[in-house]
Amino acid sequence: MSSLPVDHAGLAVLPFDECIRLIGATPVGRVAFAMAGEIEIMPVNHTLDATTIVFRTATGSKLTAATQASVVAFEVDGWDAVIEDGWSVVVHGRAEQVTDSDQLRRLDALSLRPWADAAERPQWVRILPDAVTGRRVRKRASGRR
Amino acid sequence: MSSLPVDHAGLAVLPFDECIRLIGATPVGRVAFAMAGEIEIMPVNHTLDATTIVFRTATGSKLTAATQASVVAFEVDGWDAVIEDGWSVVVHGRAEQVTDSDQLRRLDALSLRPWADAAERPQWVRILPDAVTGRRVRKRASGRR
Repeated sequence: MSSLPVDHAGLAVLPFDECIRLIGATPVGRVAFAMAGEIEIMPVNHTLDATTIVFRTATGSKLTAATQASVVAFEVDGWDAVIEDGWSVVVHGRAEQVTDSDQLRRLDALSLRPWADAAERPQWVRILPDAVTGRRVRKRASGRR
Repeated sequence: MSSLPVDHAGLAVLPFDECIRLIGATPVGRVAFAMAGEIEIMPVNHTLDATTIVFRTATGSKLTAATQASVVAFEVDGWDAVIEDGWSVVVHGRAEQVTDSDQLRRLDALSLRPWADAAERPQWVRILPDAVTGRRVRKRASGRR
């Protein structure tokens, strides 16, 4: 990992392939969007469908509302408080509700089951990425304290 | 936990005290805000200062820019993919850069050290909550599959 490029903030820049792998390997992410003058942010259990992110939600939920927002951000991360290590991948894109019946049949066949099953979550939302970026905390090379 | 009230989406509603405890007990959260027509979301390692959230950032960083955004959201969560359990706490509020010298002295005395120490992060940002809400996934009472 030491050969990764570093951004202006001193964080290691993760390659695109690694970002996509991390999105797929991390079952919970967060969707953020602006709605009625507020910023909403909520966790979702998602999966990858090619390079788009898909998840299920309830009819009329705030997450369905995300599909009316012009832009959304999606984030996954992982961290270890003991060694103070962490990474994050952020997707900037647009959310849309999936309505095409062929697509819905295919998505329903995926193994994604919403964790919060106390209420029905029949809707599929897809995030179409415009940009995918990943960063990892890079500890100071020397002077570990 | 079975006595917690349930929201319209079937999620258990966490009490305010539990939300504050979880924010303080979870070293990494995410800040989301709108900036230049995009939604930004980025992880921070934070701490509580009374019921406000404080974290350090670099001069001129995107997180400093959050202090010029009118509203921000802050989120912490925890989840277990094996038992499909999870919770999240979301704070809606405003971010401000701390400039008062007495406050800065006090914050510098906190044990919060930024994990990403490859670049200097001398600025303190405070999130002043307008609303704090917490939810926990509530599994279906019967019919575990």
